[in-house]
Amino acid sequence: MADIANWLASAQAWIEAELERALSRSLATAPPRLAEAVRYPLLGGGKRLRPALALTCCELVLEKAGSPTTRARELALPAALGLEALHTYSLVHDDLPCMDDDDLRRGRPTVHKAYGEATAVLVGDALQALAFEWVAHGPRAAEAVRVLARAAGARGMVGGQALDLASSEPGAAVDLAAVRAIHGLKTAALIEAACELGALAAGARERERRVARAYGRALGLCFQAVDDCLDVTGDAATLGKTPGKDQRLERGTLVAVAGLEGARVEAALRAAEALGALEGWDGGAARSLREVVAFVLQRSR
Amino acid sequence: MADIANWLASAQAWIEAELERALSRSLATAPPRLAEAVRYPLLGGGKRLRPALALTCCELVLEKAGSPTTRARELALPAALGLEALHTYSLVHDDLPCMDDDDLRRGRPTVHKAYGEATAVLVGDALQALAFEWVAHGPRAAEAVRVLARAAGARGMVGGQALDLASSEPGAAVDLAAVRAIHGLKTAALIEAACELGALAAGARERERRVARAYGRALGLCFQAVDDCLDVTGDAATLGKTPGKDQRLERGTLVAVAGLEGARVEAALRAAEALGALEGWDGGAARSLREVVAFVLQRSR
Repeated sequence: MADIANWLASAQAWIEAELERALSRSLATAPPRLAEAVRYPLLGGGKRLRPALALTCCELVLEKAGSPTTRARELALPAALGLEALHTYSLVHDDLPCMDDDDLRRGRPTVHKAYGEATAVLVGDALQALAFEWVAHGPRAAEAVRVLARAAGARGMVGGQALDLASSEPGAAVDLAAVRAIHGLKTAALIEAACELGALAAGARERERRVARAYGRALGLCFQAVDDCLDVTGDAATLGKTPGKDQRLERGTLVAVAGLEGARVEAALRAAEALGALEGWDGGAARSLREVVAFVLQRSR
Repeated sequence: MADIANWLASAQAWIEAELERALSRSLATAPPRLAEAVRYPLLGGGKRLRPALALTCCELVLEKAGSPTTRARELALPAALGLEALHTYSLVHDDLPCMDDDDLRRGRPTVHKAYGEATAVLVGDALQALAFEWVAHGPRAAEAVRVLARAAGARGMVGGQALDLASSEPGAAVDLAAVRAIHGLKTAALIEAACELGALAAGARERERRVARAYGRALGLCFQAVDDCLDVTGDAATLGKTPGKDQRLERGTLVAVAGLEGARVEAALRAAEALGALEGWDGGAARSLREVVAFVLQRSR
């Protein structure tokens, strides 16, 4: 796992420096208190998995074409910035009192705890606008905006959050298929978009975009399956958020419908599917993407 | 005012049919309950001023170029749809209990009253994503997305809402300049974007975009000045929302800092500025845009 730790650390350093730069430019004329509250969650840590995936899928397509990967960071940057802004907005809104009502995120008070509820709503709204502004500066920008918007909206991430909330209503019948549907929208849609946007930035054709999507979707489902396990087995220090949350909220999770071992099996199945999507692809980027799968999976143990 | 009533009614009929069609396509695979809640505010009436302005500014630029205006609806449609989705999301979030806490909008229960607070947050979030998805289907899409995102975000509409909320905090010092700044961001930024996006859709050059922006900005400031008057003088039936709201929330409004007559003077000044921006422009579209100014202004009496 040493390689993958380096891979993630390198992408983190890159995207954090670029987020800092992009925020300074985009928030220069914003009201100072709001600007500060927007920076707080976006620069407050996080794995930066989505930007790292976008960058690596960009490299994957460049390698396939025999092009040098030296331009990958430049090409993938708008998508990487936008993905992180969009993901962060979703965390800010998910933590709101009327949603998951969480006090702790990435080891710090959530935005509404630190700045108040109204500001937290506005911070999420501003971050979503920033996401599209940033993505619209990249290659094949119009198509990239459409991919991100579909993944983010009512038939993607927001739809998944709506289903997730509904799953905790009294009398909701939640089975394995329902949980998979929630995970597909709530988590996998944006990770799939991260991979597709990276490929798109490298000029991918439809076949290559399909590979990136299939890999991202399976990895996203694996990631959420592992997350469900960690909600039961993890502690606040490791997670940086409140463990046992799903149970408290009586959410339909994989662990609830399939048990801890069932959830681990689901994670392993999705991991195999992600690896399968990369069959026949070699080179450094494909190797990294395979190691990401192993990295995500081992967290479930 | 007969002409302007026709102008608005015609744009309304157009955009409402198109919203219906676009929603059916974009929400086809969304969770049904969320889809219903997204439709509720977007198809629940409203003046549809922003789509009408985008369409007419598109015609303005086509007329100037000597091109037939028959394609204006086709060209301006993506921007018009996106503007209305974006405006509607802002209303849904502004009405939330942690924001303005309003029960009534366009004569009906607000989204959080009808569907609950969590769903209202998600509906706003989904509508913002839809806005960018739709705009990204239009001409000069990447530039259009950037214009909309800047107008919508922390240095535009969301920034204005943040300043507006801050103006009601105890001890906030609010003067005329502060109120103008709030109005410039909260209301004028998106109306300015509506005019610019319409011009852009027609292939406008920088000089024409500047005219559209100047007109839209002044009209937006006039519109909000009139709105501040109506909050004091209107009744719920006319407004379709709760009157006296700003006073209850102790917001810094034009009426609070300049009195009712001062607010009317401000509205008239901005109206003159909007008309000034159109100096030297003639043709049917310019005439309509002038009549819009008179239409907005007379509501203050």
